[in-house]
Amino acid sequence: MTKEDTRNRLIEAGARIVHEKGFRDTGIKEILEAAGVPRGSFYFYFKSKDEFGLALVDFYAAFLAAMMDRHLEAPGIPHIQRLKGFFDEIAAYFGARGCTGGCPVGNMAQELADDDETFREKLKRAMAGMEERMAACMRAAAHGGELREGMDPAETAAFILNSWEGALLRMKAEKSLEPLVLFDRMVFSVLLRS
Amino acid sequence: MTKEDTRNRLIEAGARIVHEKGFRDTGIKEILEAAGVPRGSFYFYFKSKDEFGLALVDFYAAFLAAMMDRHLEAPGIPHIQRLKGFFDEIAAYFGARGCTGGCPVGNMAQELADDDETFREKLKRAMAGMEERMAACMRAAAHGGELREGMDPAETAAFILNSWEGALLRMKAEKSLEPLVLFDRMVFSVLLRS
Repeated sequence: MTKEDTRNRLIEAGARIVHEKGFRDTGIKEILEAAGVPRGSFYFYFKSKDEFGLALVDFYAAFLAAMMDRHLEAPGIPHIQRLKGFFDEIAAYFGARGCTGGCPVGNMAQELADDDETFREKLKRAMAGMEERMAACMRAAAHGGELREGMDPAETAAFILNSWEGALLRMKAEKSLEPLVLFDRMVFSVLLRS
Repeated sequence: MTKEDTRNRLIEAGARIVHEKGFRDTGIKEILEAAGVPRGSFYFYFKSKDEFGLALVDFYAAFLAAMMDRHLEAPGIPHIQRLKGFFDEIAAYFGARGCTGGCPVGNMAQELADDDETFREKLKRAMAGMEERMAACMRAAAHGGELREGMDPAETAAFILNSWEGALLRMKAEKSLEPLVLFDRMVFSVLLRS
């Protein structure tokens, strides 16, 4: 095991626990235990819990970006359907885990954005990364004539991303997939209908 | 000062602090201090911190419901414009407070829904109360021919509420009113355009 391997194991374990419990409520001890890393060695891998938290945001953002890219770059499918494929995969994921957790990036933004500028900037960039991917998809859709006349691709993408964050929050409150089903219907059958 | 007066003062002080810091990070001591109520007397007014938290959700929900009703019952204005008036007032409020805080009900849902069924049920009902008011507005709009053919009033209301929660979350992450401005434009000039 290299230092890098162990560091990654801590991030993966932390990503799981923080997604369930929130960042502030998660203790360093339980991360070490879940990762099977000796107690007391956390600061060998991270300067502080905050540095660890910032690495978690990068981890979540990279995970979501990879999943998004897999859908948005799928060949032979209309661009709007590619975006729908991403949301469908996420909805299936939450269906399998009882509609808990919500968006890990959104959660951390809710919890930390007001208190800590470093976290806020990092979270802002993570969301901007998702938005830019979706905007590229909407631009390609517009170019291919899939988007209705007069709809701005970048604004549409940002609105869809923000609405989806809200749908995930409501899913947690309802413990039901219905907010995601409604999001899908309103975005793909009403807002983006051709 | 009656017991009821003091209880209300604690709720008002708590509502302010919890909106800024979150429920778990707010201590009973600082609520008592902010309300000017003697230390050690909290449990004379509330059985537990959770009972206090549930009263806070009621307080936030009643506050938002009253503000919504004021707009939605305004006479002589098209129904869709009444709803826009509510969102405009909230946007002005956040503009004045530096785009921090976000939706107090959404925040508590994000923080507590997964951990505590009593809170989740209470928060779910608070959101359902907002949704029902907006659905009544959308039904009246549909009845008056303000809503486009084929748009379901209840679904449209739920989608708008959830999207707004997401826009408020993004506002916190961006520390900018832009997500609320975009929400307004996409909802009122694209989704609900006549």
